[in-house]
Amino acid sequence: MKQYLPHKYKLKLQVFQKEPDFGKGIVQLMQLVEEKESLSAAYRQMGMAASKAWKILNRAEQDLGISLIDRSPGGSHGGHSKLTSEGKDLMERYLKFQQEVEDAADAAFSKYFN
Amino acid sequence: MKQYLPHKYKLKLQVFQKEPDFGKGIVQLMQLVEEKESLSAAYRQMGMAASKAWKILNRAEQDLGISLIDRSPGGSHGGHSKLTSEGKDLMERYLKFQQEVEDAADAAFSKYFN
Repeated sequence: MKQYLPHKYKLKLQVFQKEPDFGKGIVQLMQLVEEKESLSAAYRQMGMAASKAWKILNRAEQDLGISLIDRSPGGSHGGHSKLTSEGKDLMERYLKFQQEVEDAADAAFSKYFN
Repeated sequence: MKQYLPHKYKLKLQVFQKEPDFGKGIVQLMQLVEEKESLSAAYRQMGMAASKAWKILNRAEQDLGISLIDRSPGGSHGGHSKLTSEGKDLMERYLKFQQEVEDAADAAFSKYFN
């Protein structure tokens, strides 16, 4: 192996209609919403500001033309949120897409940088 | 096909030792240096500021621990630049790596978003 070859790689993958917006971050947020049934619990766990969470959700929903998360109003006990069926479908497709590309990238990285 | 599925994807791929730095932009700059034998002609063609070109080169060279481009001083007729042998090797490996990952991503995108 040549000493100077890089040891790591980073892959960023986004799907979109007009502007790249739907990627690892929003998918992680959606996975936590599914688990916790709460958008605020989800972004808090990620250490993400509420304003950032709303911004990435609104931007992706606008670009994709669908609703990703059903939000119910907060109230004193906090809101209850869940993924829409289209949001869940999109998330699951993205996860399979990402897994397949990551597997290919791992194999190609070993091939060319080892 | 479901109407709401995204039609496009974006892939970003970087190789590095400590901090992501070596990707499509620097490789395009290096390809132009190889073609034009001039760093300034290369960044001008990309519409890139000299300061940006030096910054991405210096950062990558520092992270990777190798020199990517041999720069000769400017003078009245402009400098003459060429890739180092290690830089050329790294660029060629990156291009093959990128091509293989893009091919896999094209196939996976068709599979999951069609």
